[in-house]
Amino acid sequence: MARYGTEESSWESNAVLSGDTVGLTEVRKLSEVAVSAMESGENERGGPAPSGGPALVAQRFDERLAPYLPEVGVGGEAALSQMVSAVSSGSVNPADPSCIAHLHAPPLAMAAVADLAASVLNPSLDSWDQAPSTSHLEQRIGRLIADLAFGHEHGDTLMTTGGTESNLVALLLAREHFERIRPGSMRLVCADNAHHSVARAAWILGLSEPVILPTDGRTLQPEALDRALDRIDGPAVVVATAGTTDTGDIDPLREAARTARKHSAWFHVDAAYGGFLLFSERYRDCLEGLHEADSVTMDLHKFGWQPLAAGLLCVSDRRRLRLLDVRADYLNADDDTEAGFPDLLHRSIRTSRRPDVLKVAVTFRALGRSGLGAMVDRCCDNTLEIAEHIRAKMDLPFEPNISTVLFRPSAVRSLSPATADHVVSETRRILLERGRAVIGRATLPAKQSAGTATRTYLKFTVLNPWTDTTRLVPLLDEIEDVASSVSERVRKE
Amino acid sequence: MARYGTEESSWESNAVLSGDTVGLTEVRKLSEVAVSAMESGENERGGPAPSGGPALVAQRFDERLAPYLPEVGVGGEAALSQMVSAVSSGSVNPADPSCIAHLHAPPLAMAAVADLAASVLNPSLDSWDQAPSTSHLEQRIGRLIADLAFGHEHGDTLMTTGGTESNLVALLLAREHFERIRPGSMRLVCADNAHHSVARAAWILGLSEPVILPTDGRTLQPEALDRALDRIDGPAVVVATAGTTDTGDIDPLREAARTARKHSAWFHVDAAYGGFLLFSERYRDCLEGLHEADSVTMDLHKFGWQPLAAGLLCVSDRRRLRLLDVRADYLNADDDTEAGFPDLLHRSIRTSRRPDVLKVAVTFRALGRSGLGAMVDRCCDNTLEIAEHIRAKMDLPFEPNISTVLFRPSAVRSLSPATADHVVSETRRILLERGRAVIGRATLPAKQSAGTATRTYLKFTVLNPWTDTTRLVPLLDEIEDVASSVSERVRKE
Repeated sequence: MARYGTEESSWESNAVLSGDTVGLTEVRKLSEVAVSAMESGENERGGPAPSGGPALVAQRFDERLAPYLPEVGVGGEAALSQMVSAVSSGSVNPADPSCIAHLHAPPLAMAAVADLAASVLNPSLDSWDQAPSTSHLEQRIGRLIADLAFGHEHGDTLMTTGGTESNLVALLLAREHFERIRPGSMRLVCADNAHHSVARAAWILGLSEPVILPTDGRTLQPEALDRALDRIDGPAVVVATAGTTDTGDIDPLREAARTARKHSAWFHVDAAYGGFLLFSERYRDCLEGLHEADSVTMDLHKFGWQPLAAGLLCVSDRRRLRLLDVRADYLNADDDTEAGFPDLLHRSIRTSRRPDVLKVAVTFRALGRSGLGAMVDRCCDNTLEIAEHIRAKMDLPFEPNISTVLFRPSAVRSLSPATADHVVSETRRILLERGRAVIGRATLPAKQSAGTATRTYLKFTVLNPWTDTTRLVPLLDEIEDVASSVSERVRKE
Repeated sequence: MARYGTEESSWESNAVLSGDTVGLTEVRKLSEVAVSAMESGENERGGPAPSGGPALVAQRFDERLAPYLPEVGVGGEAALSQMVSAVSSGSVNPADPSCIAHLHAPPLAMAAVADLAASVLNPSLDSWDQAPSTSHLEQRIGRLIADLAFGHEHGDTLMTTGGTESNLVALLLAREHFERIRPGSMRLVCADNAHHSVARAAWILGLSEPVILPTDGRTLQPEALDRALDRIDGPAVVVATAGTTDTGDIDPLREAARTARKHSAWFHVDAAYGGFLLFSERYRDCLEGLHEADSVTMDLHKFGWQPLAAGLLCVSDRRRLRLLDVRADYLNADDDTEAGFPDLLHRSIRTSRRPDVLKVAVTFRALGRSGLGAMVDRCCDNTLEIAEHIRAKMDLPFEPNISTVLFRPSAVRSLSPATADHVVSETRRILLERGRAVIGRATLPAKQSAGTATRTYLKFTVLNPWTDTTRLVPLLDEIEDVASSVSERVRKE
């Protein structure tokens, strides 16, 4: 088979394609190489995060792996082993109880492995002839998630790269919807607790300046929304949040929905975080009013325990997805569509598209609604217990929401506001640089304070159902110790 | 550990998280399950595509797998085995020589397995504390690809979900660039050979109606571009294509760059397909002029043999990426940035983001520049040979470009234009429905015909370096046979 000289022939033994029998044998062999490399990287790291901070992590990495595009390669097995062990030793481990900063879920093993199958088979969801089974599966899973979100069968769900893309597509659908029925420059209205991706989407879409409502407390005020919509002459899209990133707060969805409807506004709910409380029989009532949304953002890479990405955009009336229609003869020629080959291009603003639905389908089948609900319950219940522990020993400024709890070490109590903020941020960085913990932060308006004063808090986001008080007590003690030393040092300066 | 009753405890044995020692043992076990399931799916399919067409493929799938969200799950191992074998048997295999329709690359085994590691470790590239090593790796790989594209060290590269997102971000950068230095409504100018995602991006971004230049032949005409830019009063972005989807044509980049510069327009090149001719010493000259672009779209999931997604957007002046700046205190607070924690949010329009760079880095290290160049060479060389074979036996309306060849069976020669188009499309569908082949199609203006008449052609896109004339001769014979039967049938109707 080799038609080239000796040098080039080396690529031929390494460039094994994944899809056929020979390829699957290679995938089996290389998977073992990758898992072993992750084990060695994990041992090398020995904790939730690499130590040394950004500059040292980068330097160690370059020493092992530069140059990144050699003229002649080292072969697949060596490259995979070297690269994966280095990446692993320099990664944070979201399954470690002390890695508790972000809406950054520890993925299920089964979902990660389903992603391997997605990569090996490599369907592309822009045409049926690239994705016969996965395009069908995506439609099935999409419909059932929409049924769950809206409580009726007229909806559908698009899979996205995450909440940010979902919010963008929701606003795009709203813009185009109004262009056809009530032309004019659509305004976005949301509270100041909305995720940054909402205003960013308005900017990308070329919408006029958003109307951002101040939150007195931490959630959208329906009366303020009503007044804002009164003042807008023309179409509007209202975005409410079900689970803010900073505090886990859920806006009053029923009232917001009613107000939006009164003004004929499109009602979008960003439930990237809170949406899959729907899995839980005990917590789903927190989402009352979600059913009335025109569109809903949800992320299965948060509650759902999927590796990135598993974003969703549910729309309550699936006919509206035709607003995304686009024609490209090589993918959805009319005669092919008439012959029964599904037209898929209106299911995304992307073209080539990975089947993220596969890992979702495996997880749904493996755990069922009840298993996923139990995992949500466990995270939320554990958060309440952790908050009680914090209340007893540290400062708990707000009640926890969903699985988010904000707090401050008791060591900063006696410091001035600015100094306390500094100690809080510094404590977080020290624990991160030492590789001891990955803790979140949030800056929020100060309570009982007029004007724009803010305070910085530490934040736990519990997305690991095995993370409970027992596992977090040592971490809380360590946080208090570090905060205490930093306070001491700062006092002396 | 179990605090729940018997029913719920079943999720606890299945919900193994991937990241720690126990998790890696589970990943090892489940990887074997997934590979075996793919082997069984592959055997069941027995060819490049499932047989039966869309309705039957869907029905078989539902019979095996519904309901898709049971109340109680079947467990991880069973779910993975059942779902992956069904998905696999219902997938097309891009590594099969007869799967040759689209810019749908057969992925390298090593890259697919690197994607497993990405999913297991699950870094998220929106903040350093979620992706210490992979954020650094992305920056290193991004710079070196920009160096390759521009021939200087001032550029940088963003990783995207593919050419569609890359084109969108390029137009967004251009829009914002001009907003700051020459405000006004930016116009998009491109030829009618541009990918549909270019006009779609203009629509998403709220730009005014694009100026689409007719191509006399199949590539952008620099003189027509010059005249169009003369007529535009205000800022403009010019998009040229290096490797069209339908024909593989490359626009005259040097002349287009010069014309764009003359009019102070932003010059973007959509090189999603042709960009990695840069790997090849023999073919890279086809891209002369690429160096002069302001931004370049490239896809490593085409030439590059990555599983989806591995999109790239190169910008020649990396300072311009600050146009995407956004602030979110929980991800890039000023004091963290000042303390040396990299601010990553301007590297994407997404927020949570999968490390697609890992598989790219493994592939670069494994094969080196010379290995990747040899693979490109092989695909292009084989395409020329295949075209010669077609020329001898069938109708070759255009010379092949890059690795794309258009043709028609000789059986349609004597048919009327409309009937011939019908037979061509029908032939493609029959081979697909029988599970025998996945062939592309392209509809192009008819040669030597005035007005808007078009013709439909069959298309091969060769992205598999092992696909050569020997392997395609049986397929070409089968295509001719089917076309002949369809022509016969149509003649009788």
